[in-house]
Amino acid sequence: MDAPVSRTRIRRLPELAVTDPAVLREVLDAGVAGHVAFVHDGQPYAVPVAYGRSGDAVLFHGSTGSRLFRTLALGVPCCFTVTHLDGLVLARSAFETSMHYRSAMVLGRCAVVPDKLPALRAISERIVPGRWDVVRPPSTKELAATLVLSLPLDEWSVKVSAGPPDSSPEDSGWDPPTGVVPFELVRGALTESS
Amino acid sequence: MDAPVSRTRIRRLPELAVTDPAVLREVLDAGVAGHVAFVHDGQPYAVPVAYGRSGDAVLFHGSTGSRLFRTLALGVPCCFTVTHLDGLVLARSAFETSMHYRSAMVLGRCAVVPDKLPALRAISERIVPGRWDVVRPPSTKELAATLVLSLPLDEWSVKVSAGPPDSSPEDSGWDPPTGVVPFELVRGALTESS
Repeated sequence: MDAPVSRTRIRRLPELAVTDPAVLREVLDAGVAGHVAFVHDGQPYAVPVAYGRSGDAVLFHGSTGSRLFRTLALGVPCCFTVTHLDGLVLARSAFETSMHYRSAMVLGRCAVVPDKLPALRAISERIVPGRWDVVRPPSTKELAATLVLSLPLDEWSVKVSAGPPDSSPEDSGWDPPTGVVPFELVRGALTESS
Repeated sequence: MDAPVSRTRIRRLPELAVTDPAVLREVLDAGVAGHVAFVHDGQPYAVPVAYGRSGDAVLFHGSTGSRLFRTLALGVPCCFTVTHLDGLVLARSAFETSMHYRSAMVLGRCAVVPDKLPALRAISERIVPGRWDVVRPPSTKELAATLVLSLPLDEWSVKVSAGPPDSSPEDSGWDPPTGVVPFELVRGALTESS
């Protein structure tokens, strides 16, 4: 949980960088899925994954048959990114049109978590609080088919864009409506299965 | 726009793979931002980017000062992934608890687009239809500071999870509410800036 180092120093729009670890945790805790980047046979991949957080580590779980999880379990360099799209920023110019977002990026190498049940519970509680206590727990066979990985929050960056639209003197004479169109990921009601 | 080849063959839950290019276009056209994976100094990164689509290519734009865009402009291998989280699938067991999602992954190398204005317009129209015609167009200086890249839809995969929760005989005696909690990314009303 150190301060960001060189590889995670934000170069573009550095004024949007946030170095407070509390904000990192908030951004992570606001999501249920992110994207893991890893390299396989020289090809980078970005793969969506659900996740949890336990203290200063992100937790993933997946099948022992998954290429992603088998590769990550080797401890190769990876990157985990969570991005929340919070809105569109409508400026007077095309150039300044942008988005509101919160994005957290964690670099590192995953470690295999031998004690799977508490980690799976943490992931479940992050995504559907309270659910773990009412579902059938994993069987020995299901646990054996599951890889649980942790990625420490050692090297990371957070970028938050939340300001009003920018304008410039060149925009004179252009007066479209400007402002922010908020985005929200809304959870609907449970549609029960028969 | 060929059928998926070996690198993009879906190995995990192959029954969720979709090979219809029309579905690829639908999944791409339903989003405004995705994640690009690329490698820099041996480290993979997953970086959020807004995008558009023009025919059989995805379009990106960014600053000529951006490490991401300068690296991608070299034509290095990359991966662009768009994921829509559509809901939580609440099963009777922890093991079968999952998510509804649509995810498209495109592998390839970006090319620099010399004719920037039509591409920028296409990106803008994808994100805020009609906006391009009412904002100040990019100046010569702004255009010079912008890199536009295209990634062809040659090698890709699409995975769609949309089914009901799975159950197994082992779940007998466990009867929590089951079904799907839908997710929707809702756009709110414009909050005008003063």
